[in-house]
Amino acid sequence: MKQVLSIILLILPLLSISQDMDRRIEFPDIPGYKTLKCDFHIHTVFSDGSVWPNIRVEEALRDGLDAISLTEHLEYQPHGDDIPHPDRNRSYEIAIQEAKAYDLMIVHGAEITRDLPPGHANAIFIEDANKLNISDPLEAYREAKRQGAFVFWNHPNWIAQQKNGMATLTDMHRQLIEEDLLHGIEVVNDITYSEEALSIALEQDLTIMGTSDIHGLVDWQFELANGGHRPISLVFAEERSIASIKEALEARRVVAWFNQQLIGHEEVLKPLLLASLRFGEATYEGPSSVANVTLTNNSDADLQLRNTGAFGLHKHTDIFIVAAHSTKQLQIKTEDQRESFTMEFEVLNATTGPKEHPTLAFEVVVDL
Amino acid sequence: MKQVLSIILLILPLLSISQDMDRRIEFPDIPGYKTLKCDFHIHTVFSDGSVWPNIRVEEALRDGLDAISLTEHLEYQPHGDDIPHPDRNRSYEIAIQEAKAYDLMIVHGAEITRDLPPGHANAIFIEDANKLNISDPLEAYREAKRQGAFVFWNHPNWIAQQKNGMATLTDMHRQLIEEDLLHGIEVVNDITYSEEALSIALEQDLTIMGTSDIHGLVDWQFELANGGHRPISLVFAEERSIASIKEALEARRVVAWFNQQLIGHEEVLKPLLLASLRFGEATYEGPSSVANVTLTNNSDADLQLRNTGAFGLHKHTDIFIVAAHSTKQLQIKTEDQRESFTMEFEVLNATTGPKEHPTLAFEVVVDL
Amino acid sequence: MKQVLSIILLILPLLSISQDMDRRIEFPDIPGYKTLKCDFHIHTVFSDGSVWPNIRVEEALRDGLDAISLTEHLEYQPHGDDIPHPDRNRSYEIAIQEAKAYDLMIVHGAEITRDLPPGHANAIFIEDANKLNISDPLEAYREAKRQGAFVFWNHPNWIAQQKNGMATLTDMHRQLIEEDLLHGIEVVNDITYSEEALSIALEQDLTIMGTSDIHGLVDWQFELANGGHRPISLVFAEERSIASIKEALEARRVVAWFNQQLIGHEEVLKPLLLASLRFGEATYEGPSSVANVTLTNNSDADLQLRNTGAFGLHKHTDIFIVAAHSTKQLQIKTEDQRESFTMEFEVLNATTGPKEHPTLAFEVVVDL
Amino acid sequence: MKQVLSIILLILPLLSISQDMDRRIEFPDIPGYKTLKCDFHIHTVFSDGSVWPNIRVEEALRDGLDAISLTEHLEYQPHGDDIPHPDRNRSYEIAIQEAKAYDLMIVHGAEITRDLPPGHANAIFIEDANKLNISDPLEAYREAKRQGAFVFWNHPNWIAQQKNGMATLTDMHRQLIEEDLLHGIEVVNDITYSEEALSIALEQDLTIMGTSDIHGLVDWQFELANGGHRPISLVFAEERSIASIKEALEARRVVAWFNQQLIGHEEVLKPLLLASLRFGEATYEGPSSVANVTLTNNSDADLQLRNTGAFGLHKHTDIFIVAAHSTKQLQIKTEDQRESFTMEFEVLNATTGPKEHPTLAFEVVVDL
Repeated sequence: MKQVLSIILLILPLLSISQDMDRRIEFPDIPGYKTLKCDFHIHTVFSDGSVWPNIRVEEALRDGLDAISLTEHLEYQPHGDDIPHPDRNRSYEIAIQEAKAYDLMIVHGAEITRDLPPGHANAIFIEDANKLNISDPLEAYREAKRQGAFVFWNHPNWIAQQKNGMATLTDMHRQLIEEDLLHGIEVVNDITYSEEALSIALEQDLTIMGTSDIHGLVDWQFELANGGHRPISLVFAEERSIASIKEALEARRVVAWFNQQLIGHEEVLKPLLLASLRFGEATYEGPSSVANVTLTNNSDADLQLRNTGAFGLHKHTDIFIVAAHSTKQLQIKTEDQRESFTMEFEVLNATTGPKEHPTLAFEVVVDL
Repeated sequence: MKQVLSIILLILPLLSISQDMDRRIEFPDIPGYKTLKCDFHIHTVFSDGSVWPNIRVEEALRDGLDAISLTEHLEYQPHGDDIPHPDRNRSYEIAIQEAKAYDLMIVHGAEITRDLPPGHANAIFIEDANKLNISDPLEAYREAKRQGAFVFWNHPNWIAQQKNGMATLTDMHRQLIEEDLLHGIEVVNDITYSEEALSIALEQDLTIMGTSDIHGLVDWQFELANGGHRPISLVFAEERSIASIKEALEARRVVAWFNQQLIGHEEVLKPLLLASLRFGEATYEGPSSVANVTLTNNSDADLQLRNTGAFGLHKHTDIFIVAAHSTKQLQIKTEDQRESFTMEFEVLNATTGPKEHPTLAFEVVVDL
Repeated sequence: MKQVLSIILLILPLLSISQDMDRRIEFPDIPGYKTLKCDFHIHTVFSDGSVWPNIRVEEALRDGLDAISLTEHLEYQPHGDDIPHPDRNRSYEIAIQEAKAYDLMIVHGAEITRDLPPGHANAIFIEDANKLNISDPLEAYREAKRQGAFVFWNHPNWIAQQKNGMATLTDMHRQLIEEDLLHGIEVVNDITYSEEALSIALEQDLTIMGTSDIHGLVDWQFELANGGHRPISLVFAEERSIASIKEALEARRVVAWFNQQLIGHEEVLKPLLLASLRFGEATYEGPSSVANVTLTNNSDADLQLRNTGAFGLHKHTDIFIVAAHSTKQLQIKTEDQRESFTMEFEVLNATTGPKEHPTLAFEVVVDL
Repeated sequence: MKQVLSIILLILPLLSISQDMDRRIEFPDIPGYKTLKCDFHIHTVFSDGSVWPNIRVEEALRDGLDAISLTEHLEYQPHGDDIPHPDRNRSYEIAIQEAKAYDLMIVHGAEITRDLPPGHANAIFIEDANKLNISDPLEAYREAKRQGAFVFWNHPNWIAQQKNGMATLTDMHRQLIEEDLLHGIEVVNDITYSEEALSIALEQDLTIMGTSDIHGLVDWQFELANGGHRPISLVFAEERSIASIKEALEARRVVAWFNQQLIGHEEVLKPLLLASLRFGEATYEGPSSVANVTLTNNSDADLQLRNTGAFGLHKHTDIFIVAAHSTKQLQIKTEDQRESFTMEFEVLNATTGPKEHPTLAFEVVVDL
């Protein structure tokens, strides 16, 4: 490790901000799209968070994010005695200044904060947060639409609003969806996951969102020192721009990355997994029909695989883990020597529906 | 961690041999039985291994084992030019001397080393290894039986003998089993696992064995520095004695512990898992019906669980890991407040048959 | 480590706030005094810091501190557009509320922020920060004195005010000291150390202070993830109370703990080192005159020792390190077997004056 | 760290033997010489060691050594009942075979094992160990000389032979030196250091040797899992060949590397330290006269420095550590802006004589 650490130490001073290479979130691009790392639910002292916007920018840079949105509560201002200003765009403006020197996109957003229904929702890609701060909830959503916002339902599983923790669609939500006022739903919020929200996303064809909803410090809330990571939305965008992110969100090309789990519509989650895992060329040793091959995982997820194919493994049961950013040596009992063969895996910590995990097939070529 | 490290540093000098607390293998006892950690397939310079028997004793002490057997090849003596003696009991005798000062049981054993069939087999609990060193394989097994040995088939998946790596029962093996000359089979040997051997064990009612078959150094072969462990047999014995271990092996009360996987007959693997996992008392906060409860894993295995019960989790998908020797906080959506409820998990990295994983049910009591 | 980790995991939920045991700063008490861990130079959003006061309270709890003071700049208010209130006590009041549930003392303080001379100074144990916010610097110090404050000169080595980085006493400082308006000086501020400030402290008999002067996050600024720690003042107080801390500061019983270095007046630094290091009872093996003995370090400092005594070491040169919270085995060549003998060490990473390191003598008793 | 780990994982399979990059010992070359890592005191089962020679080869490869010598006791054969052969060259011959595939030099050697005086000595670069196995010790040394051997006195501080642990030159040693039969002395053996042996080396102009004298496993004896390393001799050779190593030993170009300490004649230790430490180009920020500069340590030693120069440091006391293979940022108070300046450090964990540590001077150039 010595050389490696010294390389890191040499690189670090070159970075304009002291960044932990260790904690940067990394997933590969998928065919046709860049994989952008985004957190669209964040608070600062300008609503009920505990830090100034500059800390949010630095956290994002340390996490290797591409885009964030500071989504202050429009209606809930517990620091109002100390920060009495009425301008709900202030947090965004400061973040824009702080991020100027870096390659981090700041998306203008706000949290419409109401009782359930409709509960809380984030409107992002807005123009003026102040105009959303109006009493009738439906009117607030309509104003968001007028501004061209993408709107998603926050923590529909929030115990404070939903005693049983089970997201439930109401008539008001149906109306919002019908009027094209609600486009996504948080399946992942902070340290929670909602299977019911996932069902709603699938039924109603909503975008699956994962957000940190961070109020305190990312490092502490998600135990980064113990290998944790903040939940984010992996957005599959045509290019690295705010417009492209918006188009991707509207097209539902998002996977939530949460606590070593990937959750998303199968159409994007399967390509992401296929881009994350790569087989090398297999070989046979002598007359043996047990093929040797490497399986590389170039994602941040420790992928938990279940071998569902025809051929068994010589060194593993049907259940094994390919650790993040590592290469595993597999030995596959192919029964006889073949020019190629198919491997099939269920990815257990990837979720495309309630208790549903995608299955991937790989054609492995043999170097005979 | 400071206090903790200093405690360890204070404890260490008290041990008669410098032992890594870190690497000691630990699993809980199960109802009625002690869980003994045993490795019954080991080589030294007295056959084709690379170390003197004292190193095997110290490795075992460092790994926290209860019993080992040095099972030298009777017929294969590549160091014969340098170590020409004919006494096949020598390695056992040295180990007995080396282990005298410690609480480590040395089981007398030897490896009957033949072409397939019958392949290699270990005879343990023998009296005189020299008497097994006879040319007719069947007669060697019969002599082992006369000595009261427990005999198991070694690495039936060994590519050098079985080109496709798939253990296959032959007529000779059927005969050995019929004559009560073969009692167990290695489902795990060194860094390999054999699903086919597991099928044979289940069909023929053989004891499932896991062994290291170590020739070099345990630390290197099983990458202990990277969190690895040597494969062993967890033996469920009435007491901590060689006689009890023998009785347990004959009664098939063994689970193989291999590369973070537990493999065994359901009758013993389920009790081991139930002893390894323990729910605390659950509570509800206020009117919420989401129960908070701890789930503690007091085993060395990072248990990979799949929630198969009626109630969903608030902070996890149906797939999650309870790390070895840790406590996890679970939040369970019990729909309404209950006095108790049932949780059900499939343990994915426990295996009771080809691609079969046991399911456990737990009754969780609520402190209302 | 397994048992140890599980113990920690069981303890953690009992703590009212999730605290890293790992990062808690720990030094032993010294004869007659408790060793209190204090940071008296801290900023929040109420001057030019980046966090709300609650984060400062949690950081202090995680660091295991006994007392902190939020010392906002009276005159420098870069967030004034957003936080326009005129009350300079506000930050203190919020911290008092936040700390109520914990065993953390909040000392009322403020930073008098002027050009050099006199530069910046912290007044702590004040009654009303607003009253210090007056234009004439001398009058501000006099008001601090009226309130009974302890006042110390901040970062006299600050490059922004002192181009060569070398603290220099001016006539104004001499006057302040003469009028008993200035009582201490930061020898350690943030990530800097000032040998010149140490000289001034010794010449003028000022209290030696070490402070974090934290504006961002303690975790990042002092690289806690890489084993760093925030600089603090170890205050040797008769009891654990604000009044006792004040008395100790006035009596100059302080050691600065900075980047694995301890800096202080010899009268308190030597007792701290003597309390930190403890020899066990020595033994001789057989006729050998090489004594075996343990040397335990129960402080957070990796103590760098130089053996300056008459007897050499069998396993070390004259230079060795006793790591924090660890026990080292020493073998001492005592020339012949003795009932007791004296060991003498210079502690290289303890500093009592410019390039001066204290020497400790220990009488080691032999168990013959 | 992710990318870094995956790079390591990709490199590893390319190595012909699974080697820990982590533990490879690394020191830079010095002007005119290659720095070769050598261990010339090693045992196997062919005397009183516990492993076969192949393990010694693999340990050496894992440690990144250039050359080893298996130096079996000629006269002490505790495994003689089991390994009764009389050929004292056997261990060397096996090692030669084992090392054939790798870039590791095997030096033919043996340990002449006698009571004190003369005690034990290693003769290396010999032709036939059997011929040294003669009863008169002087004759054994003379035979070694006839074979062209380099001979060094082993563990002159060994308590079993020297009750007070203090190496003492006898008349017999003086005679050996006079007759050119003794050329070096172990200042470092196993886990011990001898200040008295260092004095003898300096007085008698002997080569300073550091060796592991390993009998068990290198990993355990030197606690490699906790960051330890085996003691070795760093040999400064004109080229990477056995002949060059012999010439370097005869010319006393050796530094012992022991437990984070470097011990050697000043003529070679200073060049090694100068090659290990490298200043970058310094800069001043604005009008400040505090220079910023990097100091890189490209050796395995955590160098403990004492600033003995004219200029103080802005972020360190006079005592600080530059960790192995890392870069440290220094801020130097140069009093006014200069085009270049001199820094001077005593390297505390480098030893050139009893309690003597070399001082290095560096000319630092400023990029104005």
